[in-house]
Amino acid sequence: MPVYNAPTKDTQFILHDVLKISDSDVPGYSELEAEFTGAVLEEAGKVATNVLHPLNVVGDTEGCRLENGIVYTPTGFKDAFEQMKEGGWTGLDMPEEYGGQNMPYVLGTAVGEMFSAANQAFVMYQSLTHGAVSAILARGTDEQKDKYLPNMVSCEWTGTMNLTEPHCGTDLGLMRTKAEPQGDGSYKISGQKIFISAGEHDMADNIIHLVLAKIPGGPDGIKGVSLFIVPKFIVNEDGSLGERNGVSTGKIEEKMGIHGNSTCVMNYDEATGWLLGEEHKGMRAMFTMMNAARHTVGVQGNAVAERAYQQAIRFAAERVQGKAIEDPMGDRVAIIEHPDVKRLLLVQKCRIEPLRALCLLTASAMDKADRHLDDEERKQAQGFIEVMIPIVKGYTTEMGLENVSLALQIHGGMGFIEETGAAQHYRDQRITPIYEGTTGIQAMDIVGRKLLRDGGVMAATVIEMIAEDLKSFSSDERIARMVNALNEATDDLQLSIAHILNLSKENPQLPAAISEPYLRLWGVLVCGWLSAKAASVAVSKMEDGDDDMFYQNKIHTAKFYFSTEMPKIKYYAGMIRTSGELIVEMNSDRFSVG
Amino acid sequence: MPVYNAPTKDTQFILHDVLKISDSDVPGYSELEAEFTGAVLEEAGKVATNVLHPLNVVGDTEGCRLENGIVYTPTGFKDAFEQMKEGGWTGLDMPEEYGGQNMPYVLGTAVGEMFSAANQAFVMYQSLTHGAVSAILARGTDEQKDKYLPNMVSCEWTGTMNLTEPHCGTDLGLMRTKAEPQGDGSYKISGQKIFISAGEHDMADNIIHLVLAKIPGGPDGIKGVSLFIVPKFIVNEDGSLGERNGVSTGKIEEKMGIHGNSTCVMNYDEATGWLLGEEHKGMRAMFTMMNAARHTVGVQGNAVAERAYQQAIRFAAERVQGKAIEDPMGDRVAIIEHPDVKRLLLVQKCRIEPLRALCLLTASAMDKADRHLDDEERKQAQGFIEVMIPIVKGYTTEMGLENVSLALQIHGGMGFIEETGAAQHYRDQRITPIYEGTTGIQAMDIVGRKLLRDGGVMAATVIEMIAEDLKSFSSDERIARMVNALNEATDDLQLSIAHILNLSKENPQLPAAISEPYLRLWGVLVCGWLSAKAASVAVSKMEDGDDDMFYQNKIHTAKFYFSTEMPKIKYYAGMIRTSGELIVEMNSDRFSVG
Repeated sequence: MPVYNAPTKDTQFILHDVLKISDSDVPGYSELEAEFTGAVLEEAGKVATNVLHPLNVVGDTEGCRLENGIVYTPTGFKDAFEQMKEGGWTGLDMPEEYGGQNMPYVLGTAVGEMFSAANQAFVMYQSLTHGAVSAILARGTDEQKDKYLPNMVSCEWTGTMNLTEPHCGTDLGLMRTKAEPQGDGSYKISGQKIFISAGEHDMADNIIHLVLAKIPGGPDGIKGVSLFIVPKFIVNEDGSLGERNGVSTGKIEEKMGIHGNSTCVMNYDEATGWLLGEEHKGMRAMFTMMNAARHTVGVQGNAVAERAYQQAIRFAAERVQGKAIEDPMGDRVAIIEHPDVKRLLLVQKCRIEPLRALCLLTASAMDKADRHLDDEERKQAQGFIEVMIPIVKGYTTEMGLENVSLALQIHGGMGFIEETGAAQHYRDQRITPIYEGTTGIQAMDIVGRKLLRDGGVMAATVIEMIAEDLKSFSSDERIARMVNALNEATDDLQLSIAHILNLSKENPQLPAAISEPYLRLWGVLVCGWLSAKAASVAVSKMEDGDDDMFYQNKIHTAKFYFSTEMPKIKYYAGMIRTSGELIVEMNSDRFSVG
Repeated sequence: MPVYNAPTKDTQFILHDVLKISDSDVPGYSELEAEFTGAVLEEAGKVATNVLHPLNVVGDTEGCRLENGIVYTPTGFKDAFEQMKEGGWTGLDMPEEYGGQNMPYVLGTAVGEMFSAANQAFVMYQSLTHGAVSAILARGTDEQKDKYLPNMVSCEWTGTMNLTEPHCGTDLGLMRTKAEPQGDGSYKISGQKIFISAGEHDMADNIIHLVLAKIPGGPDGIKGVSLFIVPKFIVNEDGSLGERNGVSTGKIEEKMGIHGNSTCVMNYDEATGWLLGEEHKGMRAMFTMMNAARHTVGVQGNAVAERAYQQAIRFAAERVQGKAIEDPMGDRVAIIEHPDVKRLLLVQKCRIEPLRALCLLTASAMDKADRHLDDEERKQAQGFIEVMIPIVKGYTTEMGLENVSLALQIHGGMGFIEETGAAQHYRDQRITPIYEGTTGIQAMDIVGRKLLRDGGVMAATVIEMIAEDLKSFSSDERIARMVNALNEATDDLQLSIAHILNLSKENPQLPAAISEPYLRLWGVLVCGWLSAKAASVAVSKMEDGDDDMFYQNKIHTAKFYFSTEMPKIKYYAGMIRTSGELIVEMNSDRFSVG
């Protein structure tokens, strides 16, 4: 019953008409012409629909099981993983020298959305590997790169990230896992890690664990954390697999969703590991990957929402129930004809499309920061990324959460029954506002590191960039109204920023207290900008005589966004002004009084 | 790990200080003095915490199983059900003549919240029976009452409501289940019903199914639907159980939550049934119970939210992670000290408390409409109920949905793991905005039947009543500010109403398109009123020298509500003004274009 069709048309529209990526001077981007990306996306869409999508329900219902230390993935996962490897999808945006295809991250993002939508739990095996590859690329020695990367890029071996311990989630300074130096360059790693996605499974010959641990005698807290490569099987000098390392699977966590991914408790018992990067600089290595990891989760959050939305459309178009209000004597109609169902669909549509554009725009900025030859361009792109990442992670996943709930709601009672798949989307997607840093952490990031730290310079640059971009929009009256609303919203944002900068002088708790509405205000504004930008492009296309309903929809959807989402900016600005003190004044013990 | 403590103090405060129920002239209310209700609530709280609560996780993990036609409930359910019967909790607000305790519904509501919070899935066996009893009381013959009610009030026998069929959910006119008259006053019922809560189980000697079906030759559609009593075992003249009737359990539905309740597909194969009420007037009989059923679901939605909130407080107070922002060199603190966590808790608190007051206030109006000796008082109470029920059902459950999600979020990664219980609350509560009429149906109800039908008379009466009540509030400056905000909100509501009345003349689809924001606007306003009312009472208590932190919290929570929830009124009013046409203009086939 569940359906998924890759949103190739919208993705192409965003890449080429809205963002005009192949006009960019980022190295590698000139290859990204519409015909080329169209072909890649079409192929990726086929894999998503035909290979990954059919296993989504299987993964959920079967889950993974641990027997005698071996984790068995759901039926069909192994075959599908082989197909992903054979198709070269595992190394799409990885360096050629290690067997990758060297495509820019923006294309990897477009493809990644499709794969995550089709099967979030499955794709994680691959995306965790992707993260581990990035860390080794950034911090590894040449020897380490040569030893691990070719097999990891191809996903013959997969990777994991081991951060969390039972008592230590966000606060990694509490870490207890130890790494004892052996004098030969290796370390003995001992400790327990939890929530390890793809921690153990049967789809790869080896698993390369990246493990955060503390070397005894190092600095206290977070500053004494180092990162280690701990392979499941030790890799011999000749590249063959040697002895089994001292790492074992304690259990598979009982999760609410993404059952197809084996989220493991991993026990390290004097496992042999090698330092990745410098001693005590493990967090720096982590931060290397953090932006990409958070971006990926944001994409996931919207991907599952897109899938849920598609399914809701299909259900609403097929489910006949009730009559049209204006024709109570007429025939019954599909529920998609009922205004409140249309509203539920439009709300999803008007959020998902600009969020997709936001994810792709940010990905292209990440490419720019990574690849551009000009220092100034790279620096500017980096500033943009820093502000956008907490929005991509925090706001996109929170919107996804609301969207999958609306999609479920359209199904009525059937939405609560597992067979429609709507419930699975609701359960699976719920992890995205949590892992890789909760929404609260993203909010702290955008207020703390991205605003207070530089007194608002970085934020002002982004605001200016948006204001500048608005000047290029169509002068069509409908678009001009959106531009007016955006300029007004920008004023609200700037007033909010000024207010927060003042608050921080009064009491450092105050900016934290209103950080979440501040994050959301940004999210609504940025999506409004991208929604209007898409509409502006659509107007031009139609002026050029292209009367595709797709363009009419873009304009209509943007108008709906400006009617129903943009007004939230005033609401969030109000909360930023008025709620901080009430939060800070509330001593924690008062909650237990009633 | 999950915790639940009955909110006796807040319930008593609402019943006696805010609503002053024992001052009311509703028959039976004079008995409801604080000491008496306090004793009942304390006992109910013990049952909730000690008997029902420990089985909540058991019910979720074990679920119900169907074997050879027999449904086995989870371990411990049978014993707990016996204790509920022995304690007289099953007939608390049922008539004495059938073995009930004749307590007003308002007390049943207060107790019901506690039971539903402790174990939503379990309590449904009892509350479905309660609904069936109400229907028989309202529509049954004396013979039927004598035959069925004593055993149903005591829950020796339980009851069910059979409405939905696979192709027929909200639109009951599509019903196919048939009832062939046998000439002896009985009918042969044949057809399939789905989503039948407590449809079959092992906790009662008999199950009395109330089944909607069509008598051949009757009017088409909804006007030809009749209601039947179809017992699992035919009840003999002497009250003993006779032969097994032709009703069997097709399967137990695979649901996302409330696994402890056996939600069944019921197959009727020439089952013997007896008409309840008149031929073809089945919907009238249904509507008798509809308000109570919807009210109960609203209470459930808030009950689970209260439970989830309590657990989030406990988790946040115990989980040590990170340092206070203002003291980065200090010791680590429990996460409840972090401002964003306080915010998440305050958001829940400021919604749950006025929603509890709303549920209790509406319950007391239901008692008034039912019991008051004066026709005019009964009529006025009925008008109030008509407006409040869609809010209690639609708005309370939607807020509950947001609240349980915030409670889960506070747990971080642990929230996604089943063992904390936060995930179960998230899954269980998700049914409440769906069953007994989705939020969309409630929105249509408050716009259609409760506004357009009488041109706004009923709504105006309620608005006037609120405005009148505001005049009695404390003149304290903090409260006066809230009253001002409420008066302004009332203006927004009235403008919205005028706008909707105009829209309906233009195009009948338009009011439907903006019905949901209209419902929410009411919800925010009514909760604002009750929040300010509670704060006003608290101010008076403190002026009288009672400096309990509980009262300080009431004032503080109301202030937070007026900072973070009340401003939504302007937002919803804006959507009512601007979004209707955009929804109606969107032809359904445009959704498949992208």
